[in-house]
Amino acid sequence: MPTDLEIASQAKMQPISEIAASIGLSADDIEQYGKYKAKINLPVKETPDKKHRLVLVTSINPTPAGEGKSTILVGLGDALAKLNHQTIIAMREPSMGPVFGVKGGATGGGYSQVVPMEDINLHFTGDFHALTSANNTLAALIDNYIMRDNALGLDPRRIIWKRVEDVNDRALRNVVTGLGGLMQGVPRETGFDITPASELMAILCLSTDLMDLKRRVNQIVVGYTYQKEPVTVEQLGFADAITILLKDAIKPNLVQTLAHTPAIVHGGPFANIAHGCNSVLATKTALQLADYTVMEAGFGADLGAEKFMDIKTRALDKHPDAVVVVATVRALKYNGGAQLADLQNEDLDALQNGLKNLNRHIQNVQRFGVPMVVAINHFVSDTDAELAMITENCQSLGVNVVTADAWAKGGEGTLDLAEEVVRLADQPADFHHLYSLDQTIEEKVTTIATKVYGAARVEFSKKAKNQLKQFADRGWNDMPVCIAKTQYSFTDDQTQLGAPTDFVFHIREFVPKLGAGFVVALSGNMLTMPGLSKTPAAVKMTIDEEGTITGLF
Amino acid sequence: MPTDLEIASQAKMQPISEIAASIGLSADDIEQYGKYKAKINLPVKETPDKKHRLVLVTSINPTPAGEGKSTILVGLGDALAKLNHQTIIAMREPSMGPVFGVKGGATGGGYSQVVPMEDINLHFTGDFHALTSANNTLAALIDNYIMRDNALGLDPRRIIWKRVEDVNDRALRNVVTGLGGLMQGVPRETGFDITPASELMAILCLSTDLMDLKRRVNQIVVGYTYQKEPVTVEQLGFADAITILLKDAIKPNLVQTLAHTPAIVHGGPFANIAHGCNSVLATKTALQLADYTVMEAGFGADLGAEKFMDIKTRALDKHPDAVVVVATVRALKYNGGAQLADLQNEDLDALQNGLKNLNRHIQNVQRFGVPMVVAINHFVSDTDAELAMITENCQSLGVNVVTADAWAKGGEGTLDLAEEVVRLADQPADFHHLYSLDQTIEEKVTTIATKVYGAARVEFSKKAKNQLKQFADRGWNDMPVCIAKTQYSFTDDQTQLGAPTDFVFHIREFVPKLGAGFVVALSGNMLTMPGLSKTPAAVKMTIDEEGTITGLF
Repeated sequence: MPTDLEIASQAKMQPISEIAASIGLSADDIEQYGKYKAKINLPVKETPDKKHRLVLVTSINPTPAGEGKSTILVGLGDALAKLNHQTIIAMREPSMGPVFGVKGGATGGGYSQVVPMEDINLHFTGDFHALTSANNTLAALIDNYIMRDNALGLDPRRIIWKRVEDVNDRALRNVVTGLGGLMQGVPRETGFDITPASELMAILCLSTDLMDLKRRVNQIVVGYTYQKEPVTVEQLGFADAITILLKDAIKPNLVQTLAHTPAIVHGGPFANIAHGCNSVLATKTALQLADYTVMEAGFGADLGAEKFMDIKTRALDKHPDAVVVVATVRALKYNGGAQLADLQNEDLDALQNGLKNLNRHIQNVQRFGVPMVVAINHFVSDTDAELAMITENCQSLGVNVVTADAWAKGGEGTLDLAEEVVRLADQPADFHHLYSLDQTIEEKVTTIATKVYGAARVEFSKKAKNQLKQFADRGWNDMPVCIAKTQYSFTDDQTQLGAPTDFVFHIREFVPKLGAGFVVALSGNMLTMPGLSKTPAAVKMTIDEEGTITGLF
Repeated sequence: MPTDLEIASQAKMQPISEIAASIGLSADDIEQYGKYKAKINLPVKETPDKKHRLVLVTSINPTPAGEGKSTILVGLGDALAKLNHQTIIAMREPSMGPVFGVKGGATGGGYSQVVPMEDINLHFTGDFHALTSANNTLAALIDNYIMRDNALGLDPRRIIWKRVEDVNDRALRNVVTGLGGLMQGVPRETGFDITPASELMAILCLSTDLMDLKRRVNQIVVGYTYQKEPVTVEQLGFADAITILLKDAIKPNLVQTLAHTPAIVHGGPFANIAHGCNSVLATKTALQLADYTVMEAGFGADLGAEKFMDIKTRALDKHPDAVVVVATVRALKYNGGAQLADLQNEDLDALQNGLKNLNRHIQNVQRFGVPMVVAINHFVSDTDAELAMITENCQSLGVNVVTADAWAKGGEGTLDLAEEVVRLADQPADFHHLYSLDQTIEEKVTTIATKVYGAARVEFSKKAKNQLKQFADRGWNDMPVCIAKTQYSFTDDQTQLGAPTDFVFHIREFVPKLGAGFVVALSGNMLTMPGLSKTPAAVKMTIDEEGTITGLF
């Protein structure tokens, strides 16, 4: 069996100018980055006579068994294209930190991949680097400000703007900066987040154009004065410089699948510690040019899909016309208590038990009022009895199940799913958000935790309670909430698989992100900077004189 | 008078594929980054029947009055092209930190500019970002290593590998990382340098191919064990991952001048705190394809040119065929004691005094045995008497003076200089390094300080003396020395202009850079991370909805 990297390396890609031409973009509409990557100049002209349908691909809670959500996403896009629908895939850019940490790339697998995969998983077109630079330039300007006249009286102990890096660097979680004496800055405690968790990443992903981005940068609260008044970037006058650093990063990136379906890969917030969706501009651009835009949201439907529905649709001004929830027999059995080593054996008890996880995700998606289908990413070890059990289970909830073999067969193995998606997207939707913006932050968190996660109630820490009061006083209630939560469980404890009930969900702290336009609620012990494992992926990588890489994926 | 940015924005650039074709590179030889930037795939085939001449452009000590070295560099390249010589300009990539700090771009000025200047001065093709990522990935791997089994016994207090950012961020000079308890790493004192001062930047600039880069990365000493034994990247097994992150950054970048002369802009170490030359691969590639390769070295001839001669030529295996020393009447008067506000007035006394600075640079360049010329970058305020004084002074040292008007007239204003350079480059050179590699580090530093800088003697701090002994014990004497020194003075005190004599030069510390292949000697109070000024350039920048930028340069 060839590896994903081997399959990807043997691919014959089409010049990106031809991919662009296939969706009506001329040479002047794009900026090439090498032969197989391009940035799309904005705005694009809407192609008339297209269906402009949006399909969201999400999944059950991720497990070490693998769900293959990206693989199904790509296979579905290729299948829709095979059925002669103009199709564009929209997905997030991978973060480089995890590539050198624990896992491989995030560009699909087997014969359902987006390419050039090495480039996309490494520096790509530099968007993450632009965000890192912009974020840290702002941090340097703030530290310089407090060392100089500090006219606004910004309290060094109350600066909430952190630096970022796209590296898994545990040692930067908590640092003291500005040491060394009078001329080296003002000493203070701070820390680094990973770039995909940064507010600028969220801003890039939610902005509708460059001036909206600048408006949002102006609204960022970087900290508080000694009088506890919030200080914004607008008050400091740094927004234009930061916007200049992001003027190219805001343009969506165009690549292709192995089957030459256009893919717009742009923006990369994590779905656990951030809002988990590719950029509004990527989705909008795809929608303008295609019959079907097939996009993913990160991790399970409790995280990425909920945040897509409650945060991103508000900026996108468009809801999905159909949702695909990806599951595997193996991952369901794992959620039902089976051991990783036993997943190739039929186990109807574990499956029955694990279906509770799927069912909660189904009910959650149904809550938003959009037509849906469950896609089973097929493995050779799946038995007929197992597949029948899933189908019967889902049909009792009014949802069809379609098996897809995107890894081994690409779009050809995903045609049935594509046909069901076409059928669903033509059905009327009755879309609504989970909560309205005029609810309080506390009510919003409680709504998500009790309805989507299944918690009995939410416990707010003393700090979080104080913040709720402060935020209300400051008029910051009107924003959606972005909950930072483990992706492995509906609860805030990553070991609780399946569909736990009757649990308490813990919020320890809020972070206001007024530029992004949401409030982050940190649950459990979620960290916004990952670490490296005992044996990081980095130590197994090789590169030879031809530039050939092994061990990256 | 239009600004540099206005002139650059109005330029009609040629597609980069045409610029490539003009030096014999096909579409397969380059990777386009937008329409006007490309990376050159290596190796290129040498074009037969070319003269393969190398011209180095350097200057007197920089002053606030401005020398226009880059402007002369670009004008000279354009003039040589006008004279029908196949010419390629080679220069460094600008660092983004200073762009948002105190100064504008580094791509020439007026009608002698390299374009697209906004792109080159901002993210360009991502080389600096790749270096930052690679550097900080290595730092994260090291901190992860000491938190895990730390089999080699690497002493957290003796780790010398620092993190970097391409941001002027004073507050990161001295930091404590790894705070927060057992699971957040090992607390230790460390700091950040600016990316252009990093060892990886030097490695990128001195490597002759990707495997040479990997070999050099393996040789990096990251710190010492509790037994004070050096620990290399090779021992840790991280070199391949770091090399993977630099596989595209090692490829030289191709752009053009306003007059469409090809320019290879690649690598960007500062010349004060680093070795200050563009990459060996950029110069080598240009030499293979052109009659004349015109390159610059950073700051004055005491820094960039000395380091070019003693460090870079050893990796490049080629010495310059001619050297141009750039000066202005204004800057010479400033060096001679005139005030900035008075520089437009004729002042023969100040000029006479300031010529001492030029003369020491002339004598230094002559020491290397290469034909040279002094280029006066012409300003309207220059008087005939002043120009005559300079000419007479230089002729007494056996050096011709040519006036050039590259800013206002581009290559047309630099034809006389080009003709003199052609004449000089055909003359035999008697090139020799300033010191041989088998001298001790102490002897090398003393040679540079007394011969080039004019110091009476060198005073080494206690720490530096200890290091000299340790380095000798470890067999680290065989490397060139890279002195970190203020660019404004021959001394280690930036206020001492002109050509001071009889001063003591102070070395406070050495930093071994075995991957780069040199030892850094920190003089005076030179810092390897700049800070921002009271009113950073960033606060004056604007960007509008069309993406039009003001205040950047």
